[in-house]
Amino acid sequence: MQFHAAYCSYLERNNTKMKALYQAIRDAIHEGQILYGEKLPSTRELAAAYHISRGVVNQVYDMLTSQGYLLSQHGKGTFVAYQIDLSNEEFIAEPAVRHLSGWGQRIRQLGQPATRDMVTPGDALKQSGAVIDFSRYQPDLSKFPYEEWNNRLYAEVRNREPDLNAASASVSSLGDPKLREAIAAYLRRMRGIQADAEHIAVTAGSMQAIALLTQLLAGPGDLVVTESPSYVGIAQAIQAAGAGLVEANLDGQGLVPQDWQARLLFVTPSRQFPTGEMLSLERRQTLLEWAHRQDAMIVEDDYDSEFRYRGMHVEPLKTLDKEGRVIYLGSFTKTLPVEVRLGYVVLPPALADTFRKAQALYEPRPVNLLEQRALAAFMASGQYERHLRRMNRFYSRKFLVLIQLLNQELASWFEWVDNDAGLHVFGWWQGDASAFADFRRAARSEGVLYSEVSSSAAPSTKYGIYLSFAHLSESELQEGVMRLKKAVTTGFKSC
Amino acid sequence: MQFHAAYCSYLERNNTKMKALYQAIRDAIHEGQILYGEKLPSTRELAAAYHISRGVVNQVYDMLTSQGYLLSQHGKGTFVAYQIDLSNEEFIAEPAVRHLSGWGQRIRQLGQPATRDMVTPGDALKQSGAVIDFSRYQPDLSKFPYEEWNNRLYAEVRNREPDLNAASASVSSLGDPKLREAIAAYLRRMRGIQADAEHIAVTAGSMQAIALLTQLLAGPGDLVVTESPSYVGIAQAIQAAGAGLVEANLDGQGLVPQDWQARLLFVTPSRQFPTGEMLSLERRQTLLEWAHRQDAMIVEDDYDSEFRYRGMHVEPLKTLDKEGRVIYLGSFTKTLPVEVRLGYVVLPPALADTFRKAQALYEPRPVNLLEQRALAAFMASGQYERHLRRMNRFYSRKFLVLIQLLNQELASWFEWVDNDAGLHVFGWWQGDASAFADFRRAARSEGVLYSEVSSSAAPSTKYGIYLSFAHLSESELQEGVMRLKKAVTTGFKSC
Repeated sequence: MQFHAAYCSYLERNNTKMKALYQAIRDAIHEGQILYGEKLPSTRELAAAYHISRGVVNQVYDMLTSQGYLLSQHGKGTFVAYQIDLSNEEFIAEPAVRHLSGWGQRIRQLGQPATRDMVTPGDALKQSGAVIDFSRYQPDLSKFPYEEWNNRLYAEVRNREPDLNAASASVSSLGDPKLREAIAAYLRRMRGIQADAEHIAVTAGSMQAIALLTQLLAGPGDLVVTESPSYVGIAQAIQAAGAGLVEANLDGQGLVPQDWQARLLFVTPSRQFPTGEMLSLERRQTLLEWAHRQDAMIVEDDYDSEFRYRGMHVEPLKTLDKEGRVIYLGSFTKTLPVEVRLGYVVLPPALADTFRKAQALYEPRPVNLLEQRALAAFMASGQYERHLRRMNRFYSRKFLVLIQLLNQELASWFEWVDNDAGLHVFGWWQGDASAFADFRRAARSEGVLYSEVSSSAAPSTKYGIYLSFAHLSESELQEGVMRLKKAVTTGFKSC
Repeated sequence: MQFHAAYCSYLERNNTKMKALYQAIRDAIHEGQILYGEKLPSTRELAAAYHISRGVVNQVYDMLTSQGYLLSQHGKGTFVAYQIDLSNEEFIAEPAVRHLSGWGQRIRQLGQPATRDMVTPGDALKQSGAVIDFSRYQPDLSKFPYEEWNNRLYAEVRNREPDLNAASASVSSLGDPKLREAIAAYLRRMRGIQADAEHIAVTAGSMQAIALLTQLLAGPGDLVVTESPSYVGIAQAIQAAGAGLVEANLDGQGLVPQDWQARLLFVTPSRQFPTGEMLSLERRQTLLEWAHRQDAMIVEDDYDSEFRYRGMHVEPLKTLDKEGRVIYLGSFTKTLPVEVRLGYVVLPPALADTFRKAQALYEPRPVNLLEQRALAAFMASGQYERHLRRMNRFYSRKFLVLIQLLNQELASWFEWVDNDAGLHVFGWWQGDASAFADFRRAARSEGVLYSEVSSSAAPSTKYGIYLSFAHLSESELQEGVMRLKKAVTTGFKSC
């Protein structure tokens, strides 16, 4: 809950639980941590989480409602009714920024930047030195062929005059032609996708593609569907574009298709992010039929299909697309050094030129051209695929160790999603909200970090955690699971 | 004129001049080279340019008007009345992309990507081998201290594990903290600007800043002022944001202030782009008072103030700004190798967090982090300023050679703007439109390229050219000016 830290801090300052809760929620609304229209936990959930009576929570909600902060809708729940005033004191000091465009106002309301490796705030984290950090998506770079990579990079540096200068001036924002050819060849061979290099755009990471595509295809009045839970960046892109967000439920076979009146759908068919569920072939067909009927577009985010440990590689949804409705996203951030921020998007031909213009609006020249050309050479030499095969074997061992440990030690607390691929493992919490809050605090105190999601689908909020394992050693995996187990079993019962 | 090449091509196919002109204009409208609402040349201008009678041009305009392509407004001129149909054949093939957001539709209509070194299309260029190219903004890299720079870059590559990985995961999209400190120190010392590193954002070139700031501060219904002529990227950013563009006139002392009902103003006070005019102190004060009255923001684009050959460095407008209304843009693209795409923006504190979120929407991590850190070290060691001083002396010689040649050889054809700084020289064409068209063709045929602007301020369209000289040797400058002279004096009189 967004006001948890504030609640504890108010309690520590000798307030009553009621007063602490009142002040914590009010602060969270004022500071924009809970936004206008957002649903609050039920009084039952909140009472359980904080070990206070429902009567106290009811009183707090009533006070906030009478002051205009909250609004109760019968049978639906309690919602934030207070909109942050853009003309408040922060702005009196600098009057010039009172005027933001509609887009600017939406941007101002956005939460923290979206990265898939968002670290849970570590305020209650005790053992900062020896933390086991499952919350960071980071490749194990100890096996990366730096020598070969640096040779490619240095070769470009040495050649930069005049070749790289001329290229930089003439290459479009879509990216280095050789890299786009190499990606097209990779997709044909490894993913069964037939795409021309001229319809592939190199991006500075997949978020650039998500934001630009949303902005191009949806605006105020349009609806965009995303999975619940899903990558937080997608919701931010939809919010920034001013479109409405529709959450699609998951049921173990990936998202459950419906007849949405939407313009655009984001989906992770190969391995749902973050739960890891795989979308069935039947549902893939249903989605394509839906898109045809609605005249809608589908963005397929294939964020970590490079790694598969058991079973067959699944063909992307894009391979079934006959109408140019599927836009395919891939990324190199799981396979190359972290600072090489490169991704790509396979565009339907009719959208390629408009996408290029959108990208060029923010940067007319390709970014990271040095790295783009190093990667083109790295791929053309076969070194990239050799690296993938080596990492696949290497991650496979870690994956099997982790999944066995989790099923052995933590099976009664989490339902671990059955999984053959990727760089993280996902589990649904089997207890209630209150116990989850206890677990969260205890895990911090044990010095173990993980990523957390909640899904507010009916009948009640579900909580889940996922553990990124690529960068951890086998003994760290072991130690991390033991700490998680200690956290669930001992638990913290109060602030 | 956008239909010139087509006109020549129709003529070559043995059409009459009337038929060729009719078909060329119709094609240009169909292909979106002249857009809905755009003004066509007057019949007088067109007749002069093509050496045909005004009666023929009148007949062509009448035909196109009767067919709905054009509309005459008494006393105002002739305008395009035909809107390209978005549901034409290109889209029937791929129905899915019929639905673009409002932003997407505006992006689709944008012209070519904005780069300051836009090359005039070389279709009629004969001597491709030995072209003298004044149209490219490119530093002279023969003097760049590559060894020192590469050492910095390599040092980062060697240090990348684990330092760079950790930094990449934790540095915000605003950029490397050390680079932002180095920029703040540089601005204090060299430009008199007091800015905290926390209010400086590193961008991937100045276009990123222009596009994001426009989008944040102006939307549909807002007006944005820009100089006429100015950098084409500004007009594209305004068009993309859906705001209205107001053109401000220049009169030799920079832009002429008016009481615009606008939200945002783009200005190049140190050296107007591209004319090179310097904005007087009085006008700077007037602009700040205007911004106060209108509660507006001003973006100061200080695109090439690193280079000044005579006289004093001018303090930026930003140094007079007491209210946090001026946003200052700087760039490294004139001083570092072309593929290092780095610029920066000094933000008013109240806007810094919103700008960071806007930047992070498209890319949550800093781009070019390797280059950012290399540059931070390069600046901290003093090497960057030594490089600037050396280049200043070096460019100074080229500048003096060029300005003397132009005043000697081309003074009766162009009015060369008096100038002490920068990497290009600007001149206003002293003849009429027809003679300018002749000059343009003759210059291509002589194998000399330059950049061209037109300003449609009253009483008639003015034409100007600018010559970027940084990358050319003194003998190339000499040869280039001689070719320009040959082009104006011989001229081409027909296709």
